[in-house]
Amino acid sequence: MEKNYISMFLLLVAVAYTLAKDFGAKDKKDTNEYKPKLPQTLSRGWGDQLIWTQTYEEALFRAKSGNKPILIIHHLEDCPHSQALKKVFAAHKEIQKLAEKFVLINLVYETTDKHLSPDGQYVPRIMFIDPSLTVRADITGRYSNRLYAYEPSDISLLYANMEKALKLLKTEL
Amino acid sequence: MEKNYISMFLLLVAVAYTLAKDFGAKDKKDTNEYKPKLPQTLSRGWGDQLIWTQTYEEALFRAKSGNKPILIIHHLEDCPHSQALKKVFAAHKEIQKLAEKFVLINLVYETTDKHLSPDGQYVPRIMFIDPSLTVRADITGRYSNRLYAYEPSDISLLYANMEKALKLLKTEL
Repeated sequence: MEKNYISMFLLLVAVAYTLAKDFGAKDKKDTNEYKPKLPQTLSRGWGDQLIWTQTYEEALFRAKSGNKPILIIHHLEDCPHSQALKKVFAAHKEIQKLAEKFVLINLVYETTDKHLSPDGQYVPRIMFIDPSLTVRADITGRYSNRLYAYEPSDISLLYANMEKALKLLKTEL
Repeated sequence: MEKNYISMFLLLVAVAYTLAKDFGAKDKKDTNEYKPKLPQTLSRGWGDQLIWTQTYEEALFRAKSGNKPILIIHHLEDCPHSQALKKVFAAHKEIQKLAEKFVLINLVYETTDKHLSPDGQYVPRIMFIDPSLTVRADITGRYSNRLYAYEPSDISLLYANMEKALKLLKTEL
């Protein structure tokens, strides 16, 4: 039963992503239709009071020089699963507090770094990178064929994973 | 006399850039000191009512698929010359209107694309890239050893260059 539920969720994610991609393609064909809420923020609603980096290169640089792990969120504005996760992420005080210890970046456009999509380019997808610039592929959510996906109900697991990303870092140093 | 004035300006730009880089390095050493105005915007004050892309890769993609030239601004928050140019750029109604015809990106962190720094990585530096993804190194400002630098007083030249970037594109198609 639980397995069915997970399968349905993953199917929904896949459908939502496909739809979102279609919307994206439409935007790109007729750029006049592309109207985000202005002014656009770097946080895109994932935490307006946090400091976000603009580019992946900048995040890598800040992680290395500041000795902080990176928390990277891939999402899409048109994806309801991304939106739902964002809502709980932004409202969760402990997560927002803990997020300060990371170099933060959220992307709606995939990078060219294949290490960031070990099991595909789905959204939402949250990964950690340690200051040695190694993608922490071992820190995963609860869905076996979408390892880095989180549902709103997984927010405590995400919090635990954030602590894990910070704790292991300290042990390794 | 005018030559002296230009030399002095360029010296100032160089000094400001060096200072800004030093500030940058300081920020990076002690990340707790890095406190931008929150929430950060993608426009960073260059035009809050315009649509800005987050990453260079995204800008290239949108230029190609939307058949629009890119206007790319390299600047630094700590550089007084960048700030001064930004002020006139954001307040110039015709420029803000014309900017809608471009894929817009402003960066405070250099990309790895060497074509974006044909004569160095100074700021402020404004360049155009046409939809075929060729950097328009021929569209320059008035300073011979900082070809893509603009002073606030050069705002009309910048406007003319924006028109040039749009016009040549049409001729070439």
